[in-house]
Amino acid sequence: MKKIEHLGIAVKNLEESEKLFESLLNTHVYKREYVEEQKVTTSFLRAGNNKIELLKASSSDSVINKFIEKRGEGLHHVAFSVSDIRYEMARLTKEGFTLLSEEPQNGADNKLVCFLHPKGANGLLVELVQDAD
Amino acid sequence: MKKIEHLGIAVKNLEESEKLFESLLNTHVYKREYVEEQKVTTSFLRAGNNKIELLKASSSDSVINKFIEKRGEGLHHVAFSVSDIRYEMARLTKEGFTLLSEEPQNGADNKLVCFLHPKGANGLLVELVQDAD
Repeated sequence: MKKIEHLGIAVKNLEESEKLFESLLNTHVYKREYVEEQKVTTSFLRAGNNKIELLKASSSDSVINKFIEKRGEGLHHVAFSVSDIRYEMARLTKEGFTLLSEEPQNGADNKLVCFLHPKGANGLLVELVQDAD
Repeated sequence: MKKIEHLGIAVKNLEESEKLFESLLNTHVYKREYVEEQKVTTSFLRAGNNKIELLKASSSDSVINKFIEKRGEGLHHVAFSVSDIRYEMARLTKEGFTLLSEEPQNGADNKLVCFLHPKGANGLLVELVQDAD
């Protein structure tokens, strides 16, 4: 894994959380994006060469809504940057991790992504991300 | 904030979690350390220039034990690297965040650290870290 690409944080009110993380990180939101596949609106901020992705459900059946109902606002997933997502998906399957999709999906920020099941990863929802060149 | 310095992950069984994260990140634990102040044993792994810190309670009254009882294993805190921790503590107090200590504390990995209250930070327990040079 090359680095932590981003942390995904589930929030209820995107505008309030944008202000909060702008204060915390002493920076500004540099991108907002709607991700149809996951029914979420996202906002991105930078912390050096890492990113924070705020996630707001845009529909009541969004996974983010379900997550907040169960656990409240907070960290939803950790994304690691990889060079070759298909190679990592094969490697991790062999290591016993469970992938949540057989093929890489289109994620926010023009990336190919794949999630790993948190049950096999100490309760952590892990996302693999590769630049979609 | 210069970058995500590390993610702190609460675990029940340090040896099992070390193996799991070694497989996930395709690397090896490079350091183990006991942090007396927080009654935890820690293990560190690298993901590029970011780190993963596994946290295992070494006493039943450790905050990590309480966290796992309440929320299960998983992400406990996010640490951001700062150049001047006292400057950031003053700036964030002014911005309305609540610090969990008035002075920087000694953390693992030879750092000065200070935590922010998660209630003011979208449920996220945030740690500021500065190299203790």
